[in-house]
Amino acid sequence: MKMKVSLGPGTLAYPTPVFVVGTYDKTGKPNLMTAAWGGICCSKPPCVAIALREATYSYSNIMEQKAFTINIPSEDMVKEADYVGIVSGKTENKFETLGLTPVKSELVNAPYVDEFPFVLECKLLHILEIGRHTQFVGEILDAKVEPAVQASNNNPDPLKMKPFYFDPGTRGYYSTGKRIGDAFGIGKELKKESTFT
Amino acid sequence: MKMKVSLGPGTLAYPTPVFVVGTYDKTGKPNLMTAAWGGICCSKPPCVAIALREATYSYSNIMEQKAFTINIPSEDMVKEADYVGIVSGKTENKFETLGLTPVKSELVNAPYVDEFPFVLECKLLHILEIGRHTQFVGEILDAKVEPAVQASNNNPDPLKMKPFYFDPGTRGYYSTGKRIGDAFGIGKELKKESTFT
Repeated sequence: MKMKVSLGPGTLAYPTPVFVVGTYDKTGKPNLMTAAWGGICCSKPPCVAIALREATYSYSNIMEQKAFTINIPSEDMVKEADYVGIVSGKTENKFETLGLTPVKSELVNAPYVDEFPFVLECKLLHILEIGRHTQFVGEILDAKVEPAVQASNNNPDPLKMKPFYFDPGTRGYYSTGKRIGDAFGIGKELKKESTFT
Repeated sequence: MKMKVSLGPGTLAYPTPVFVVGTYDKTGKPNLMTAAWGGICCSKPPCVAIALREATYSYSNIMEQKAFTINIPSEDMVKEADYVGIVSGKTENKFETLGLTPVKSELVNAPYVDEFPFVLECKLLHILEIGRHTQFVGEILDAKVEPAVQASNNNPDPLKMKPFYFDPGTRGYYSTGKRIGDAFGIGKELKKESTFT
């Protein structure tokens, strides 16, 4: 057996996303925050989960508007995404500071970031209190992408969109590297004689 | 305003993880599956969520054992991880087929993969029925890492561990590229005069 070192209970997982969450407050002021705790959580209805602390401005906004967007930055927006995670929307309009443009979703009462290449527009579906964080499950009503980063099947091409991920363990951001294999394909090389007949 | 193309409601997010989930069935046979729908969901208690269809073998195993592990493959294990997502544990012991070693956790009744560089040992805490997928929230009782991939602060170094991510949109796996910035740091370059005083 290989030796493994125990790190204790901690919130490390690979990759951890950089979800930039867009909301409106009750006066209609747009806000952004970064959520590293989250991910897709259901195929039908298509849903994505994000987990927020109650103290955040976005928590109140989602509770009031029952809606949020998730905006995926490309690696050339890493400074903007990091800034969003440092400053609270209680004291500042982060769109204005960063020169980003809030676009009001036509589907839900939340803004998305015009300058980011990919966005999800989400309607609040479930709330799960877990502990320090509350999980919001949003139904994805639409996904939108910039044409410049589309693959031939219309979905985003990660090699063009260049999303990056967050690592809490080394407090850093890491870029997308290369495509290293076809999903539901490359593993077939390991099949036994009878498995895929 | 920039033009964005609507893709309709769909489960695309960047990055999407490749969580290889380890469980025991009621006879003690170890199983593995890949979960792309998941992510960290709470800091205290430290928790991770995975979403599974009821039809999977792992769903029944988690319901019975109230425990699972999450195993993170490095890019040199991309074939094994893909294989785990193709074949059902109902018909095959995937550990045996792939020559992987199940190690029984000392903390929960679930096996982890000896050959993978990073594992989380989880106790089932919440079950949320969403639709086609059921979300299991597990409390992380320990994280374990191979010494060879540790950073100077003991946590895994992504540049050594080389985790990869899954993209459902282009049905591919993408490697970790470069470290492109310090979290809670690189964004400070965009601060206004008074923000960080």
